[in-house]
Amino acid sequence: MTDASPSLTVRRKRDRQTDDPAVLDEIMAHGAIAHVAMVRDGLPIVLPYLYGVGDLGDGRGRQLLLHGSTGGGLFLDAGEDGVPVSAAITHLDGLVYARSLNDSSANYRSAMIFGRATLVPTEQRLEALWMVGDHLMPGRRAGVREITAKELAATTVLRLPLDRVSVKVRFQGVGEAPDDGEDHGVWAGILPLSMQAGAPITGAVTDAGVPVPADVTALAGTLEARAAERRAALVERLGAAVRPTESTN
Amino acid sequence: MTDASPSLTVRRKRDRQTDDPAVLDEIMAHGAIAHVAMVRDGLPIVLPYLYGVGDLGDGRGRQLLLHGSTGGGLFLDAGEDGVPVSAAITHLDGLVYARSLNDSSANYRSAMIFGRATLVPTEQRLEALWMVGDHLMPGRRAGVREITAKELAATTVLRLPLDRVSVKVRFQGVGEAPDDGEDHGVWAGILPLSMQAGAPITGAVTDAGVPVPADVTALAGTLEARAAERRAALVERLGAAVRPTESTN
Repeated sequence: MTDASPSLTVRRKRDRQTDDPAVLDEIMAHGAIAHVAMVRDGLPIVLPYLYGVGDLGDGRGRQLLLHGSTGGGLFLDAGEDGVPVSAAITHLDGLVYARSLNDSSANYRSAMIFGRATLVPTEQRLEALWMVGDHLMPGRRAGVREITAKELAATTVLRLPLDRVSVKVRFQGVGEAPDDGEDHGVWAGILPLSMQAGAPITGAVTDAGVPVPADVTALAGTLEARAAERRAALVERLGAAVRPTESTN
Repeated sequence: MTDASPSLTVRRKRDRQTDDPAVLDEIMAHGAIAHVAMVRDGLPIVLPYLYGVGDLGDGRGRQLLLHGSTGGGLFLDAGEDGVPVSAAITHLDGLVYARSLNDSSANYRSAMIFGRATLVPTEQRLEALWMVGDHLMPGRRAGVREITAKELAATTVLRLPLDRVSVKVRFQGVGEAPDDGEDHGVWAGILPLSMQAGAPITGAVTDAGVPVPADVTALAGTLEARAAERRAALVERLGAAVRPTESTN
């Protein structure tokens, strides 16, 4: 069961394409939602799905794991043979303020995956569900009860191999065509962006006095530390192309 | 030029679908990237695009405006007649920690738009570009130079009407099937998530002494205030279903 596949060669901004597997791994690790496109009645549909990443031991290596319900559209369409999809995981890492609109841009990391999404076989579904949980809520597995047979029967996981992937990254400073009319007295620079956690909200279903657990606090800390590391890495990479300011030192 | 269109009725979790135009407006206003799916050679492709929202005065009202290059794939495919697309704008607003994996979830807002993306006519392209800029970098228009004729010629904007849209929202607390085995001594609650800005990085192309401008600082402040407002709105909405904790008071 193979499908023809769109070319994976980027037509524009080819310098932004990378085949470094570590970059793909990081993009996958830092995301929670994959936008998955499929064709229905000849027309495109794209929907967001929570995802995980894991090796199910089926010889396909690490795959994208999409969580769904047996009643959901994409999962019905998958049927026995699977369904051709394209999935994108994108991180907006910053806005690039140049002194012209044309040179203004965004820093981002994006993975586009092409392939046939197929149902995870029944015997691997339980482990696939835990992998999705582990990806989205690291460390939570220890705090939740076992999955019941009824829950397992009502759930579906689709797997998508990661062997046909196009990765693009912009991780740069301001790139301006020199002196084509911009005002050098106007500020130019990067506004870093990242997903961050706010203070947790405790549900009243929680017994009184139970504190926010370490895994939840740790996830918030991970997001914060990751943003600080990426900002520092960008500053280091740009070197003399950035100017120390009050807000950056 | 009309296309058949997939049903806009959500099959699952119908209570999460809304047709409140204010919710759609907010989802559009709070986003920067749209994931746009199209069909090429019978297969789906999904790609991320920076977008804006604006009324071009062409009688179609406010539309999604996708910024691209004349050399880019989707924009080539659009041609004279346009191209059927599906676009999704999704905000992950929080992780919902229940005491079972099955009841664990995410708070989110998502808009799926179906329709035919067509080229913005040449005479409206300049204004459409500014609308994309205004959307992504509010207030920046005053600081950047005019768009040159050469830049304008190399740029394309696609427009997509907002009349065929499916909006889904989960803005809730922990929903658990009561007493099916979960441990009430385990914490349950929400970890709010939002896009936040880090400290700006000043490019060395900026004249010495030029401070970070008010529009950049204001955008960072807007993101922070928005997250605080949404968190407070969720706590208020949930009322007695949330328990005050040290970290939430």
